[in-house]
Amino acid sequence: MSAEVVDSNPYSRLMALQRMGIVENYERIREFSVAIVGIGGVGSVAAEMLTRCGIGRLLLYDYDKVELANMNRLFFRPEQVNMTKTDAAVQTLSDINPDVVLESYTMNITTVQGFETFVSSLKNKSFRPNKEGSGVDLVLSCVDNYEARMAVNQACNEMNQTWMESGVSEDAVSGHIQLLIPGETACFACAPPLVVASGIDERTLKREGVCAASLPTTMGVVAGLLVQNTLKFLLNFGQVSPYLGYNSLKDYFPTMEMKPNPQCSNVACLERQQEYIVAKPARDAALKAKMEAEALLVPEFPLHADNEWSISVVDDSGLDSMDATSSDTLPEGLVRELPSADKSQELPTSEAPLTSNDDLEDLRRQLEALNS
Amino acid sequence: MSAEVVDSNPYSRLMALQRMGIVENYERIREFSVAIVGIGGVGSVAAEMLTRCGIGRLLLYDYDKVELANMNRLFFRPEQVNMTKTDAAVQTLSDINPDVVLESYTMNITTVQGFETFVSSLKNKSFRPNKEGSGVDLVLSCVDNYEARMAVNQACNEMNQTWMESGVSEDAVSGHIQLLIPGETACFACAPPLVVASGIDERTLKREGVCAASLPTTMGVVAGLLVQNTLKFLLNFGQVSPYLGYNSLKDYFPTMEMKPNPQCSNVACLERQQEYIVAKPARDAALKAKMEAEALLVPEFPLHADNEWSISVVDDSGLDSMDATSSDTLPEGLVRELPSADKSQELPTSEAPLTSNDDLEDLRRQLEALNS
Repeated sequence: MSAEVVDSNPYSRLMALQRMGIVENYERIREFSVAIVGIGGVGSVAAEMLTRCGIGRLLLYDYDKVELANMNRLFFRPEQVNMTKTDAAVQTLSDINPDVVLESYTMNITTVQGFETFVSSLKNKSFRPNKEGSGVDLVLSCVDNYEARMAVNQACNEMNQTWMESGVSEDAVSGHIQLLIPGETACFACAPPLVVASGIDERTLKREGVCAASLPTTMGVVAGLLVQNTLKFLLNFGQVSPYLGYNSLKDYFPTMEMKPNPQCSNVACLERQQEYIVAKPARDAALKAKMEAEALLVPEFPLHADNEWSISVVDDSGLDSMDATSSDTLPEGLVRELPSADKSQELPTSEAPLTSNDDLEDLRRQLEALNS
Repeated sequence: MSAEVVDSNPYSRLMALQRMGIVENYERIREFSVAIVGIGGVGSVAAEMLTRCGIGRLLLYDYDKVELANMNRLFFRPEQVNMTKTDAAVQTLSDINPDVVLESYTMNITTVQGFETFVSSLKNKSFRPNKEGSGVDLVLSCVDNYEARMAVNQACNEMNQTWMESGVSEDAVSGHIQLLIPGETACFACAPPLVVASGIDERTLKREGVCAASLPTTMGVVAGLLVQNTLKFLLNFGQVSPYLGYNSLKDYFPTMEMKPNPQCSNVACLERQQEYIVAKPARDAALKAKMEAEALLVPEFPLHADNEWSISVVDDSGLDSMDATSSDTLPEGLVRELPSADKSQELPTSEAPLTSNDDLEDLRRQLEALNS
């Protein structure tokens, strides 16, 4: 991956991220494998973005064919109608960047055989044999139904594989992305989405005569946020968002964090939660060691040594007493309706404060009596 | 534009926006003309989104050629290298959706001749002869330099043309979109961007050996936000954002509004500001008439008539007294460290409260004495 700044280098604008201090080592992207499940309006754009960023290897999963009805979203072209989405994606992506290793799986991961193939493809380490854990660095879920999300969730919980979920609403005007780390964050079964609680059968969305709305804008934004979060996660820059929503009608972007549910119905999730709790002392020790190591690296020169704006520290004891005087002396003829700031802190002590040692001893005795 | 829900209809998922109550009349999009200045990382994706949405007519402006160094952004393909960006865009867009009328201008709008051609192309009304104002409904600025932005600003101020500006930072990790309505909001000269204030010559960005970073993610998100705002503006749904920023490192999206600067250096801006002030009484009267007409349309049935969750109003006087009792009776052996909620409101009245009529009369007399 050349950093040479010439018009003929497809990586020059990416390698510039290093020179600008955003990413420490951009070339590491060549080592990473990302699996994308669902090559629709979000997944196809996510695949194109990662391909243009020079990702090492992409694994693509879909069983659908390209239709003219998909033309209102980015990526697929009318001449690809009737091709499988995986074949069409490989055609376009290999043309854009032949450096990326592409693997495509034309199958439904919610079938028994499809799920097995999905899991074994994620475990395959031939691209980077000495990698820890599975054969991929991240799984991106870009599917449009609950069953497929639960299949990704099951596979990732079983394999202890970090993944990101994405989704767009049926009315096409909102969406979200979410980071899921087995045992550490909520899994997809810990907090089922509302669409399930209200009893809508998502399979109806796929039926002839019933269709959800979609827009290339919302799907492009969600794909962009998803791959940006992926780059931050893989290349270790910025803050990786645990959850980011997109309400396009109000341009509102809610964020939140979700802890795992100790009553989760997914057995593999409960196992990962247990492992996460057991590993806490080791994690804390590693964090402490890291912070101590970083403390040794603190530079010797003071912060803001140049002081461009000539900001100086002023002794404010004079200001303090002046302020106290001015607040006590009101103009003649005026009286306070409420006590001044200082006096309002003198609260009435109608009941004895709980501060003496005797009272504490007394309480402790009562507590022990209750426990025995 | 058919709303038929079959796999062979490229507009079915867009027309579904109507059935879902998001857009009142989606087909109106066929009447609109949008000009896109700059067909780079943001402009090309914005053009593709509008093309896939079935926009009536697109006007494209750029003087650059496609280079391999552009392959880290969406849209252009390696086989288009050395084509002009306008020709390559027309090739791809007409293939995606032949229903869109495409006009391309391969020229630099910052030259005298380029600027004249730019303005006259915007004024051309052959697509919709009875349209008010100019021949386009919106201008999108997707350029990468200050001079070109100032040229768009000048043309739009002169023509009283609403436009939207977009931009991505040199370090590739933040961006923004902004709505500019001459006379009503700040124009681009009212509040010059910081990059000018700090004295960087943006032309250096184009030189061999010096290059800014860029990412398909940030540019895809900015293009998505820009075209979403465009759809909301044209099709009249949701809230059109006056300014929306995107800080990808923190996933932070600042918003703000900017009023025009009465000391703006742009003469045309000052003229539009004056017109806007003069038209205020007529605008207020129209707004009042619209609100009165809408008040007449209020439905007769009560809000939430169905009450799906069986929510009912309960007399809470019983709850109130119960609560008061429980907060007064602490378990045996415990005392309060601070007064209870009710007692804390009994503030000390060390100074006379300002409530008697005499005191008010006294103050009023003093005030009159001061004023005389």
